Amino acid sequence: MKKKEQNDNINIIIKHDKQYGNQTIYFKNSPSIKSFYSIVGPKEGKGPYKKYFDQIVKDDTFGEKTFEMAERKFVETAIKGAIAKANFSINDIDMILSGDLLNQIISSSFAARTFDTAYLGLFGACSTMAESLAVGALLVDGGYFNNVVCSTVSHFSSAERQFRYPLELGNQRTPASQWTVTGSGACVLSANKKTKIKVKCATFGKVVDYGITDVNNMGAAMAPAAMSTALAHFKDTKRDPSYYDLVVTGDLGVLGSEIFLELMEQNGIKINNHFDCGIEIFDEKQETFMGGSGCGCSASMLNSYILQKMEEGEINKILFMATGALLSTTSSQQGETIPGVAYAVAIEREG
Amino acid sequence: MKKKEQNDNINIIIKHDKQYGNQTIYFKNSPSIKSFYSIVGPKEGKGPYKKYFDQIVKDDTFGEKTFEMAERKFVETAIKGAIAKANFSINDIDMILSGDLLNQIISSSFAARTFDTAYLGLFGACSTMAESLAVGALLVDGGYFNNVVCSTVSHFSSAERQFRYPLELGNQRTPASQWTVTGSGACVLSANKKTKIKVKCATFGKVVDYGITDVNNMGAAMAPAAMSTALAHFKDTKRDPSYYDLVVTGDLGVLGSEIFLELMEQNGIKINNHFDCGIEIFDEKQETFMGGSGCGCSASMLNSYILQKMEEGEINKILFMATGALLSTTSSQQGETIPGVAYAVAIEREG
Repeated sequence: MKKKEQNDNINIIIKHDKQYGNQTIYFKNSPSIKSFYSIVGPKEGKGPYKKYFDQIVKDDTFGEKTFEMAERKFVETAIKGAIAKANFSINDIDMILSGDLLNQIISSSFAARTFDTAYLGLFGACSTMAESLAVGALLVDGGYFNNVVCSTVSHFSSAERQFRYPLELGNQRTPASQWTVTGSGACVLSANKKTKIKVKCATFGKVVDYGITDVNNMGAAMAPAAMSTALAHFKDTKRDPSYYDLVVTGDLGVLGSEIFLELMEQNGIKINNHFDCGIEIFDEKQETFMGGSGCGCSASMLNSYILQKMEEGEINKILFMATGALLSTTSSQQGETIPGVAYAVAIEREG
Repeated sequence: MKKKEQNDNINIIIKHDKQYGNQTIYFKNSPSIKSFYSIVGPKEGKGPYKKYFDQIVKDDTFGEKTFEMAERKFVETAIKGAIAKANFSINDIDMILSGDLLNQIISSSFAARTFDTAYLGLFGACSTMAESLAVGALLVDGGYFNNVVCSTVSHFSSAERQFRYPLELGNQRTPASQWTVTGSGACVLSANKKTKIKVKCATFGKVVDYGITDVNNMGAAMAPAAMSTALAHFKDTKRDPSYYDLVVTGDLGVLGSEIFLELMEQNGIKINNHFDCGIEIFDEKQETFMGGSGCGCSASMLNSYILQKMEEGEINKILFMATGALLSTTSSQQGETIPGVAYAVAIEREG
């Protein structure tokens, strides 16, 4: 099922390509990732990375009355899990940074209600894990706070009924579509110098729009944003992709990844170490078509497999870049195209 | 029409009052507000502060096909206005920080698409002006960026149809309700030392919930959050309200302000210099009941009257605290109460 589609005929609207760069900030004090936690739903728990997740929930309602309440419980559990793995209590946490796809990011805000600490709400659609890491690292690096939690979440069933159709309708999915991951990831960023995994710099993306209107083809909508931020990152840092063991993208999926790599090549940069969480999280047999998506996709993959491999020293340097499609049902109903944004965070293992 | 209602019988759920404090960060390099711009709709343009707004739009569709597109144009105009007043071009701006009330903050994201600079999407509902100032100040204070734009927007008609009823229904408004401001405000935060108005510190709020369920009574839902952040701020800074010329709140409105002041008094703090943008922006004769609300309320008041008076030296020190009600239509339909959050920023005129 995984093949390239609708890649031609891209009508370029807004690309902001005159001046990539000056978008990267460097963290001199290298905030460290002290702990991380991932929790996923049943489908994700049957995928190729099942042994890396901290928790697999068998019933995706997670014992709650609604999918939205379940989504909230996923992120609440991930935040609690990350805090516990750091051997912290909530009293040690200065702030929780979170965001999600639901209208008015209710999953994050309502989850934050249960924690007795400051809260910062973010919205970057599926780029939120990288966005929260970038802003969280700022707070720690500048010496403003000692420990913050960065997190995000998504849920297949709440996303389907908010953005597409109620599941009860049984609509057929289109070939270019991706499957919103039911899952959450959270990590504790700390000023503690002893931890080996460090956040070194962050590149903040511009909003780009190449005129994609197909709401079932998020990969194509987000690929130009990934390119824009990647070009800015490599220009700002004077690095090339080989500096990293992996150039990780969030949920471009099969089609979006192809477009991303092609766009990068057109700009003279060949990426041989690309790893897309959306492609990886599901097996082809799981019939998700272009792969996984949603804030929880890159969040659950980063806070499980990727950071575990970094802890073990198998992976030492990654560029973690998550992309978001900045549409709403209203914007699409009003005939709008789909802008995208990407945030990139360089994470390195030291010592 | 302005009277106290529904103040009794508050069912306290989550108040996080055990440990106010350690929520404030200090900006050693005091980022300065280099310029500010406000734009409002026709109703706001007939209110008591009409002479302070940079731009009053006579038709609230602003020449656009939909209210949502109009809302986007308001924030786009405010951002452009602030940049122009700073004698900057977009090339001088390192980042735009924005957020709004619409699902997936489309006003901000689509507006950001037109600017060739990095973008950070935030969600704090009506607290967004203070939230964007707090995060923007971090970026400038830490030396990461030189100039950033902080902004937000709301629109009466897009908010009504998204959160309440389509205007065409002609529903009667309830006495405790507030009127979403059609307007936007933006300012340029700069590392430039020459500007006199400085952002000195910021207090990040916790999410609190006193069990309010009436979606037409936002003031009551947000007042406890204002109290929580104010108590944290005064404890952290060892100041009392008289340190400031004005303790500004965003859009508590008549009822919410009464509750806020009462809650503060119960905690031993009497505020005699309170100024609520929601109460101020409209005249009583304009029949908005409890006053104005929406992200654009505090944004347009701060970036007009308040900062102008600070520039002129009539006001020297303010605590600017905006509150947000963190609900969605889905959360209310699922029987949830309304959590709130507040962010506070201390702004002082130096020299």
